[in-house]
Amino acid sequence: MKIALAQLNYHVGNFESNTAKIIDHIHKAKQQGADLVVFAELCVCGYPSRDFLEFKEFIGLCEASAKKIATACHDIACIIGLPTFNDKAEGKDLNNSAYFIENGEVKAIVNKALLPNYDIFDEYRYFEPSTQFSCIDFKGHRIALTICEDLWNTIENPLYVTRPMDMLIKEQPDVMINIAASPFAYNHDEERIAILKDNALRYQLPLFYVNHVGAQTELIFDGGSLIFNNKGELVDELPYFGETLSHYELTDKSEVKLLQPSTKRNTRQSDIEQIHQALLLGIRDYFYKSGFKSAILGLSGGIDSAVVCALAAEALGPQNVMAVLLPSRFSSDHSIKDAEDLVKNLGCKHEVIPIRHVTEAFEHTLHPQFNNLPFNIAEENIQSRSRAVILMAMCNKFGYILLNTSNKSEAAVGYGTLYGDMCGGISVIGDVYKTQVFELALYLNRDREIIPVNTIVKPPSAELRPDQKDTDSLPEYDILDPILMQYVENRCSSGEIIKMGYDEQTVRRVLRLVNLAEHKRYQTPPILRVSPKAFGMGRRMPIVGKYLS
Amino acid sequence: MKIALAQLNYHVGNFESNTAKIIDHIHKAKQQGADLVVFAELCVCGYPSRDFLEFKEFIGLCEASAKKIATACHDIACIIGLPTFNDKAEGKDLNNSAYFIENGEVKAIVNKALLPNYDIFDEYRYFEPSTQFSCIDFKGHRIALTICEDLWNTIENPLYVTRPMDMLIKEQPDVMINIAASPFAYNHDEERIAILKDNALRYQLPLFYVNHVGAQTELIFDGGSLIFNNKGELVDELPYFGETLSHYELTDKSEVKLLQPSTKRNTRQSDIEQIHQALLLGIRDYFYKSGFKSAILGLSGGIDSAVVCALAAEALGPQNVMAVLLPSRFSSDHSIKDAEDLVKNLGCKHEVIPIRHVTEAFEHTLHPQFNNLPFNIAEENIQSRSRAVILMAMCNKFGYILLNTSNKSEAAVGYGTLYGDMCGGISVIGDVYKTQVFELALYLNRDREIIPVNTIVKPPSAELRPDQKDTDSLPEYDILDPILMQYVENRCSSGEIIKMGYDEQTVRRVLRLVNLAEHKRYQTPPILRVSPKAFGMGRRMPIVGKYLS
Repeated sequence: MKIALAQLNYHVGNFESNTAKIIDHIHKAKQQGADLVVFAELCVCGYPSRDFLEFKEFIGLCEASAKKIATACHDIACIIGLPTFNDKAEGKDLNNSAYFIENGEVKAIVNKALLPNYDIFDEYRYFEPSTQFSCIDFKGHRIALTICEDLWNTIENPLYVTRPMDMLIKEQPDVMINIAASPFAYNHDEERIAILKDNALRYQLPLFYVNHVGAQTELIFDGGSLIFNNKGELVDELPYFGETLSHYELTDKSEVKLLQPSTKRNTRQSDIEQIHQALLLGIRDYFYKSGFKSAILGLSGGIDSAVVCALAAEALGPQNVMAVLLPSRFSSDHSIKDAEDLVKNLGCKHEVIPIRHVTEAFEHTLHPQFNNLPFNIAEENIQSRSRAVILMAMCNKFGYILLNTSNKSEAAVGYGTLYGDMCGGISVIGDVYKTQVFELALYLNRDREIIPVNTIVKPPSAELRPDQKDTDSLPEYDILDPILMQYVENRCSSGEIIKMGYDEQTVRRVLRLVNLAEHKRYQTPPILRVSPKAFGMGRRMPIVGKYLS
Repeated sequence: MKIALAQLNYHVGNFESNTAKIIDHIHKAKQQGADLVVFAELCVCGYPSRDFLEFKEFIGLCEASAKKIATACHDIACIIGLPTFNDKAEGKDLNNSAYFIENGEVKAIVNKALLPNYDIFDEYRYFEPSTQFSCIDFKGHRIALTICEDLWNTIENPLYVTRPMDMLIKEQPDVMINIAASPFAYNHDEERIAILKDNALRYQLPLFYVNHVGAQTELIFDGGSLIFNNKGELVDELPYFGETLSHYELTDKSEVKLLQPSTKRNTRQSDIEQIHQALLLGIRDYFYKSGFKSAILGLSGGIDSAVVCALAAEALGPQNVMAVLLPSRFSSDHSIKDAEDLVKNLGCKHEVIPIRHVTEAFEHTLHPQFNNLPFNIAEENIQSRSRAVILMAMCNKFGYILLNTSNKSEAAVGYGTLYGDMCGGISVIGDVYKTQVFELALYLNRDREIIPVNTIVKPPSAELRPDQKDTDSLPEYDILDPILMQYVENRCSSGEIIKMGYDEQTVRRVLRLVNLAEHKRYQTPPILRVSPKAFGMGRRMPIVGKYLS
């Protein structure tokens, strides 16, 4: 049996383009001699469709697309993923299903049993878990078809009390196929390989695994679909961050043969290389899927906006990036020069719009109320917010989308101005700690100087008052970031982090800052997710809660 | 057996105050002769604790509080709710538990079986459902103790495949106790009464039901705890929106006797009366629990800000409300007069801060870029955003929290300026449709004119350009609101709404506007929830999704 794996970029709710893409790849796979072509989980509607799934019409549109796909599916079989109505009287209204389509008809339906409901996942919000399991016979093979999380219960401290493959194995399948929607995090490729390998070994079956690629707002899918033989050896690994259609032969002895050169990586990409590619895909798909072309951002001369500008120029083309320098009376000369150097290096458009006039107008207007009270955070924030008003006015006038340039460290401790530098349509590096931003800058400069060296080496500053430095308010980033990592990613308590050797007072202060900033993060743009725990939909904290604040 | 029900206002993560309050009410109940005092679901940590639950330390603090409570619990028994570690190797790490405490010790533990995971609920994110059921014997009675949703599976098209009371009834209990965390929506009291009555009738047992009261950021709990006899008759109904401790006797024949006058309502409060009380509680608890005292808001002379100002003055006291008039060159004379009249009627503080200087500075500053392009949405938004910068500067200087004054109709269709009038710490009427805002204004004026009549009768306008009216951009609100209600609350598709008789073009336009505004709503403040489907945590939509947009 010849199996093709289609690792594709879908668009949530865009039935027209998803259906056309699926049908196109059925034709392509058939032309290349495949007996079966496998698409990803919920490919018909895109993932995650979130509360679109609560509309009956939406489920109807999925079913209509599946019919079109079935009609196009002759002399080849396909597996597609879509939500379907639960036909039982009790339980949730929907199932997360896979259709096995052959000769224009749905020959078998498999429903997902293990529904992830943690971090960014909400599947139990919509779907009833399956409790019935059976294999599919096709071309002399018996296929154990499962959906994503169904294979993820082999780890220690398992989240679920059942294991679908333990049921399916009783029917003596000779191959496993798993369709997935497994989002990117910089450590997720290795975890994925380990868990799937463990399944191939445990059940001694070859395993074909198909993932999504592409970004849906904050969630980035990295592809990297996997093929294992029945000894648990990795036979092939599809490209990361790109679409592909790959072909394999499954012999009668359950051996797996490649029908094209392997795309397996020789060495794993570094975390920063992966983050770099993920962010490019995230920016590109955010603009493409929302129908916009051009980005705008404020360029301070600092490293965060420089890195975002470089990423945007690479993702969208420098001609589609407008960088705006918005100097104030506190901006240093080197900041303006560093920003101008960056613009030159990138070749993107730029404007210089000084904010002095505007901030003076605010201070003049508020004089009767402020009445000579000392300069403080109020005046600092007026500068940041004046910049946001100008950038948003440029968006409204010329149709740009504003890129947010906050990093994860400052988003964590609330070191940013709500409705000021925390504005934007999408946050590009909001899941990248400041220390990683430096790494990313060095990586962007790997072939030539793009980010000016001075931007990288000078001490970070918000430049909202004379001689301000980030370290006036925060610990050094190489102390702050590991503490944040333990608290945010690993959910360690203050006590546990202190036991690791960090200064008690610093730890308590940092955790308190994080919890006090929940109200700010609640109102910030979606953040491209590159870590196992990003701020946003995957981290849901009370705002008026009292714990640690 | 004498049973006391403690309907109390907890604070998420505030173990000190929650524990003290519980112990205080154990003492009070004992003084009044109770054998058993019942507290609400997850009362120890507050509800919803959200991802605080992912910290082992947090669960440890719950357990430590429970120990303190147990120590205080002698010569009386109590039932408290708290998260506990799941002692099984497989499944989620936690249970949503109830402790039955007697003589200083935990005598029985009940775990919740039906875990709501829809709308604002995420319980399956944290908890493993219980599969074991047994009653608790106490003072010659056999108690079937369940937790909230455990009794909610009697409805048509049930969400769950099991029904805990069907198991418990086999042990022949003579009373049901249910501890709950059931948030307010203007139609929820009747639904709650119907479902609990149905349980009392179905199992022919008396039922004691204890709910939370108080607000946790956007979620408002209205109390209204209920007591039914074994004929399904409502014996008592605790007050709505207030704390209370009430006493009952359960006879050996399972009769329920009141030990104080009944607080059962003679007539149900109207939706608007309930919404009014809910919003007052929501404002009050948001400020109290976050440690702030004073609110600020922009007063336009329109009905939305007038209603929010009146609610804030009632909730916080007029001396704690600062109303700011921010006239522009497009503000009409009557707007300023209407705003001033309102301030006079309420007796709150006010300032007049004209924005002309600031908007001119922006236009001057952007002149080189805008280069005489015609006045459009860019200049309109500059006005709205300039007001936000001024209001936030006042917050930063004087420690106010900004109240957002957007209503649900405009939040739905995106008729508002992001980082402008969509700013604020909390949105007061973001779950109240414009037509309901008018009702609320009339209700606020029930005894005397608080909201100036002119504010109520004049056509709504954003006053961002000459002679602007809301109806230039939107259908009349009495057409818009019912369409939005069908789409947002009832999740009907365009086809279904058109079939109800609404104009096809209007329906399609409105639904498209709603879906295109997801990116704006993503960045707005938490909204006090008063309807069964509010924008915010209970409605999770894709941003770059294509469906209906």
